[in-house]
Amino acid sequence: MNPNQLGPERALSVAVIGVGGVGKELIEQLKDIPFPFQIAAVAKSNKMLLFTDGTTCFPVGQWQNALIHSESTKDTHLGVLDALRPLVKAGGRKVVLVDNTSSQDVANSYPDYLNAGVNIVTPNKKAFSGDLQLYKRISQGETTGGVPRGVFYNESTVGAGLPIISTLKDLINTGDKVTKIEGVFSGTLSYIFNEYSKGQEGGPSFSSIVQVAKDNGYTEPHPGDDLNGADVARKLTILSRMIPELRDRLPNGHEDVKPTSLVPEALKTANAEEFMRRLPDFDSELAKRRDEAAKRGNVLRYVGVIEVASGKIEAKLEEYPKTHAFATSLQGSDNIIMFHTERYGARPLLIQGAGAGNAVTAMGVMSDLLKLF
Amino acid sequence: MNPNQLGPERALSVAVIGVGGVGKELIEQLKDIPFPFQIAAVAKSNKMLLFTDGTTCFPVGQWQNALIHSESTKDTHLGVLDALRPLVKAGGRKVVLVDNTSSQDVANSYPDYLNAGVNIVTPNKKAFSGDLQLYKRISQGETTGGVPRGVFYNESTVGAGLPIISTLKDLINTGDKVTKIEGVFSGTLSYIFNEYSKGQEGGPSFSSIVQVAKDNGYTEPHPGDDLNGADVARKLTILSRMIPELRDRLPNGHEDVKPTSLVPEALKTANAEEFMRRLPDFDSELAKRRDEAAKRGNVLRYVGVIEVASGKIEAKLEEYPKTHAFATSLQGSDNIIMFHTERYGARPLLIQGAGAGNAVTAMGVMSDLLKLF
Ligand SMILES: NC(=O)c1ccc[n+]([C@@H]2O[C@H](COP(=O)([O-])OP(=O)(O)OC[C@H]3O[C@@H](n4cnc5c(N)ncnc54)[C@H](OP(=O)(O)O)[C@@H]3O)[C@@H](O)[C@H]2O)c1
Ligand SMILES: NC(=O)c1ccc[n+]([C@@H]2O[C@H](COP(=O)([O-])OP(=O)(O)OC[C@H]3O[C@@H](n4cnc5c(N)ncnc54)[C@H](OP(=O)(O)O)[C@@H]3O)[C@@H](O)[C@H]2O)c1
Repeated sequence: MNPNQLGPERALSVAVIGVGGVGKELIEQLKDIPFPFQIAAVAKSNKMLLFTDGTTCFPVGQWQNALIHSESTKDTHLGVLDALRPLVKAGGRKVVLVDNTSSQDVANSYPDYLNAGVNIVTPNKKAFSGDLQLYKRISQGETTGGVPRGVFYNESTVGAGLPIISTLKDLINTGDKVTKIEGVFSGTLSYIFNEYSKGQEGGPSFSSIVQVAKDNGYTEPHPGDDLNGADVARKLTILSRMIPELRDRLPNGHEDVKPTSLVPEALKTANAEEFMRRLPDFDSELAKRRDEAAKRGNVLRYVGVIEVASGKIEAKLEEYPKTHAFATSLQGSDNIIMFHTERYGARPLLIQGAGAGNAVTAMGVMSDLLKLF
Repeated sequence: MNPNQLGPERALSVAVIGVGGVGKELIEQLKDIPFPFQIAAVAKSNKMLLFTDGTTCFPVGQWQNALIHSESTKDTHLGVLDALRPLVKAGGRKVVLVDNTSSQDVANSYPDYLNAGVNIVTPNKKAFSGDLQLYKRISQGETTGGVPRGVFYNESTVGAGLPIISTLKDLINTGDKVTKIEGVFSGTLSYIFNEYSKGQEGGPSFSSIVQVAKDNGYTEPHPGDDLNGADVARKLTILSRMIPELRDRLPNGHEDVKPTSLVPEALKTANAEEFMRRLPDFDSELAKRRDEAAKRGNVLRYVGVIEVASGKIEAKLEEYPKTHAFATSLQGSDNIIMFHTERYGARPLLIQGAGAGNAVTAMGVMSDLLKLF
């Protein structure tokens, strides 16, 4: 975005797929920004509204109603792409897909969008943290038709609105050498261990804290989906692929990270209700670890670590001294991420703050959109 | 910068004014980046080399020699502007001035550069932290000639390579409401108080720590230039002017902040040598404050605070609990900055790391340059 020069020729045409928590908030935020844009499409999994023919326009204030009462349709992401093609061909405006789903299907269609000249902005981790081949087709594809290939931005896939992706990009693109990235990447696991492990022996049981987290809406509907570490592994995959030395390290993405799972083996297939009911049976093992850590003056934190030289990419429960920023500075459900680099030397570049929530996630998406103006 | 699409049509023509610590490092970093650019000019205060006629080109590896042996000339920033005008007119490439000086004269010429269609990237605080009229002419000027007006980026003016300016821009442009910014903005004052005030009574004298800082090259040649708080006041001016409610708050810029000065009244006109010799005479007063703070469980930190609702913009010595991130997390000569906003709610967005040094400052400049590709 150029801060002091915005003419109408810079206007964006924005297609929004996914209007859940983040998508709805995004549309709210879009309404208020002082930059010229046009909503070209809105879609959810089985409904879509198109405003691409130049005569209709987005019904601010009643789009939700209009969307719900529109005809049902399948594969809306393909329908939206078809509707955007003529807009790209017409030229003049940049066209952007904002994918606010967590759908693998939508992610799989990114190469087609990009090749058609549509730019992509998304908080959806799927395209960047799974199969390496898909990632390569997204990040290295070639222009095919007569239009310039679209570009993608995915700031909100790690740390939501925190400037994590953009900072890593800047470090790398300006020639710094990242040696290690270390952080608490899950808001849920941040909250749980900040409450659970304060550096003293004893304290509330693990299951009781998971229950509080669930009751406060900090966890996925099934808390096992947070405790299994997969989300942290996805975020590590996204970051590691941005580091040239590690680009090809994880052919199957987050699965290759093999995160430490805090889901007891016996509860692997339990539904949410059974999971929460039986979780107390497994409290003692973690309590022992907490006490042992405390005896050493340490706290437990569920962290993600990328070590560039050794190629280690790990999502695991780790001990940190009570004086470490992960113990003293980190609070609530905040994320904290440390970039150790050649230029930053002895002390890392550190970023901390809320790493989840609709408002800050949509803000990260918006900040990406602004880069396209 | 578009991450996955860079054709030669995106190449930049870069004019570098100021080749001291930061400028030299910038040219080194430029040599290594995988983006297309051309150095169009290099200048210091009384010498300049131009490569704008399309036949000569920047002598990588021996430019310093060539610069030193070039003819002496005055007002090189005016000479460079004249040489860039035809480049802008020719079109095709974006033209950028990188100002690595701390010169007010060069800063005063920004409106002319911008109006001529030259973009500006700079770590020089002068243009943004002084007279409000100059700032307005820079940030709100109109296009005059036939060329689109240039835009400016100044990431390195606050926190060097840390993403402070870009984060504040994103918060504001996406519609978040900043309520308070609070931080340790001076690397020198960070180091001095991190060493001086650790939350216990007693400890090394203030003057002895200033001496160590000076010996390690952490201070300006005259340490009074750090201790007077002016640099912090400049950074607060830069940030506050980005916040719509505070844009016009400081007509005279940093002078209106009236920072708390740690320079004893009696040493105000002392030269560096006398200053360091007599500073121990004033140790007891600060030592008393340190002890009183420690009794309350607090440390002393020299901070900058911007409170949006009240309009307070202050650079001052302040007490923080020993458990506060300014005491526990902050180390060495790092900067730490907290953004309190509506969306981030109870806990601020926090950024910490080295806020000075040629490598990280040049990196901030580079990251701005990359936004122009
Ligand atoms: N919320 C956060 O704090 C946060 C933080 C970081 C990243 N994210 C990411 O942001 C994305 C959105 O999160 P959210 O919390 O807003 O999710 P959500 O509330 O579950 O909303 C998902 C939306 O996507 C739509 N959708 C799902 N599959 C689709 C498909 N195949 N085609 C078209 N639309 C489809 C859904 O439509 P239907 O209702 O019709 O199924 C719904 O509108 C996710 O990728 C998430 O991981 C969220
Ligand atoms: N170093 C850091 O850690 C840091 C951090 C943040 C921001 N900054 C800012 O970065 C800028 C550069 O810092 P630095 O440490 O590199 O300074 P420096 O080493 O003192 O270098 C200053 C350069 O600017 C040139 N210059 C001065 N006045 C000029 C004029 N009127 N016209 C043309 N050239 C002129 C000088 O040339 P001569 O030698 O010919 O006088 C010299 O090449 C400053 O604004 C500083 O505040 C620095």
